[in-house]
Amino acid sequence: MTRAINFNAGPAALPLPALERAQAELLDFAGSGMSVMEHSHRGKEYEAVHREAQVLLRELLKVPDSYDVLFLQGGATQEFAQVPLNFLPAGKTADYVIAGAWGEKALSEAKACAALGGGAVRVSVSTGKGEGKEKQYTSAPADFAAAPGAAYVHITSNETIHGVQLASQPGAEFPRCEAPLVADMSSDFLWRPFDVSRFAFIYAGAQKNIGPSGVTVVVAKKDFIAQGRKDLPKIFQYRTHAENDSLYNTPPTFGIYLVRNVLAWVKEQGGLSAMEKANREKARLVYGAIDASGGFYRCPVEPQSRSAMNAVFRLRDEKLEEQFLAEAKKQRMVGLKGHRSVGGIRASLYNAVTVGNARALSSLMAEFARRNG
Amino acid sequence: MTRAINFNAGPAALPLPALERAQAELLDFAGSGMSVMEHSHRGKEYEAVHREAQVLLRELLKVPDSYDVLFLQGGATQEFAQVPLNFLPAGKTADYVIAGAWGEKALSEAKACAALGGGAVRVSVSTGKGEGKEKQYTSAPADFAAAPGAAYVHITSNETIHGVQLASQPGAEFPRCEAPLVADMSSDFLWRPFDVSRFAFIYAGAQKNIGPSGVTVVVAKKDFIAQGRKDLPKIFQYRTHAENDSLYNTPPTFGIYLVRNVLAWVKEQGGLSAMEKANREKARLVYGAIDASGGFYRCPVEPQSRSAMNAVFRLRDEKLEEQFLAEAKKQRMVGLKGHRSVGGIRASLYNAVTVGNARALSSLMAEFARRNG
Repeated sequence: MTRAINFNAGPAALPLPALERAQAELLDFAGSGMSVMEHSHRGKEYEAVHREAQVLLRELLKVPDSYDVLFLQGGATQEFAQVPLNFLPAGKTADYVIAGAWGEKALSEAKACAALGGGAVRVSVSTGKGEGKEKQYTSAPADFAAAPGAAYVHITSNETIHGVQLASQPGAEFPRCEAPLVADMSSDFLWRPFDVSRFAFIYAGAQKNIGPSGVTVVVAKKDFIAQGRKDLPKIFQYRTHAENDSLYNTPPTFGIYLVRNVLAWVKEQGGLSAMEKANREKARLVYGAIDASGGFYRCPVEPQSRSAMNAVFRLRDEKLEEQFLAEAKKQRMVGLKGHRSVGGIRASLYNAVTVGNARALSSLMAEFARRNG
Repeated sequence: MTRAINFNAGPAALPLPALERAQAELLDFAGSGMSVMEHSHRGKEYEAVHREAQVLLRELLKVPDSYDVLFLQGGATQEFAQVPLNFLPAGKTADYVIAGAWGEKALSEAKACAALGGGAVRVSVSTGKGEGKEKQYTSAPADFAAAPGAAYVHITSNETIHGVQLASQPGAEFPRCEAPLVADMSSDFLWRPFDVSRFAFIYAGAQKNIGPSGVTVVVAKKDFIAQGRKDLPKIFQYRTHAENDSLYNTPPTFGIYLVRNVLAWVKEQGGLSAMEKANREKARLVYGAIDASGGFYRCPVEPQSRSAMNAVFRLRDEKLEEQFLAEAKKQRMVGLKGHRSVGGIRASLYNAVTVGNARALSSLMAEFARRNG
């Protein structure tokens, strides 16, 4: 088998050793004569996996003890609704910071929750230019001062479709915020160290840097979870999952097992500092090819907001984009087509994409520009 | 590897060929050089899997065209809340039929939704004896006439913990009901043919007969889905998932792929009639061993309500139960311990448990009774 070079935006490439480990023990987990997915979620074999995934995540991210780590279902899209259901009570306002399409979706669901629950939603900052579906996002907001008394401030720290990332440059920190800071970090999670303690509530769909789709990771301050509404159905209260160690109902056991494999691989590679080093190099290779092309390629995103995870670019002659994708495919590079809502090219450079993969793309870009420029 | 004999209640045994297929192509799906879980949910490789799973389910269950087949997340437990959120408007009443612990849980979440949304919940029938946590369930309700104008009637057609099943006997049909009939069929799905058209809305966690945990299957009448509330967050409206072919947000792709493998296996075995034949034989073997034991084993459930999927029983001398479990384990039989809330023994006999597995259990039961009776 020749492994594809996978630049998918999510579900995305997974580390080969994490998959090989899953393959080797798929029929016989820990000598039990059963697949891990055939084990009870309340049995000692699965519980050890569940625990190990939690411990590894805490260790890699240096999660403070005052935070819970939860494994949920429904992806970030369910969190768009579940967060305001829990944390936006009647009479209060939540601030939304919008820097792309995913922030817009989170806002839309928050508005529906506000209408049901008597709260209000305010767009505190938007970097969008233009109207509605035509809206362009080319930068992240520099700051996001909260309205006095805001229930929380919601940010999308990396916008996968628009390739816009907050605090994307080396050494940059997330801005401090007076209100509890809630972040969709789906495509911004686990690719570098960051200071968890600046956030009240972080959520991330696993299918970028953490594992397969079908698992959502939540890292949240215990006392913030405790503030959530208590009159919701139990399954929608985060406290239910915190109190039951993410075993209130049957979790997606095989997905969490794969998360464990991925986290173990991240640790073996040297943890998040090592991840960041490789990711910076990959971003340098791809953005470098854009910047060295004399305008043959152009990235619409302002340099300080360029995402290290999702590099979006257009060709000067947009008609050549299909040809570029076809030539990439011949070199087994897949997943490079931009999101259907914005077009162009997008290279997602998550942890499992190697420096060699990024170098191959960078070389193709240079060579293609030479031939067609 | 000696394969364990797995009587888990869920997550449960999966058909070995479905797992072997997953193992063989885990690193290279359809010659793509990628795992199926690394493919985009909007790419042609995954979409073919998604489509095939839907088509197989429609074919096996003879789902009428007027019904949607959806793949969701969150398990039956999330449906406990999401069903009343959608279908219990202010001023209306939903009827709940309770025959065990899962029906109680569904009722509890419906009450929370009713309190939020202005609807009401009524227990129309309960077969429980005693109070609260001590409540015993030993039979399924014979009928469930709906209150006039009920928004829907909710049943749990098989109670996994109490081993109580509706319409469990060969040839038995589900009772007709004037109001829209909503069923949690998690542990009652896909083990035999049944008439889908009697139901308005069926949901089932996959981890019994359909696949791994992390996938929920919904089979629902299109015009019932259309009646759902329109002011909920989009992710919680069933119409969103129906209109987007279960691809509104990223689905649990690898879970649905495994569902596809399991459904293909069911079809190869001869479909649901063949499944029923084997399942009846397995139930006969295990209940037969109970009934032939002269009271050494006793099943608390009335004969006409005994579950073909989950056979629960006690030993006359309950102190021998640990010894029985230990001897079973020596023969590689696992998952036989009764649910922690009721104790005793439980043998779950889902599709992937073979007739040979049930025969081995039956033999052990006879032999153990002989030695200890």
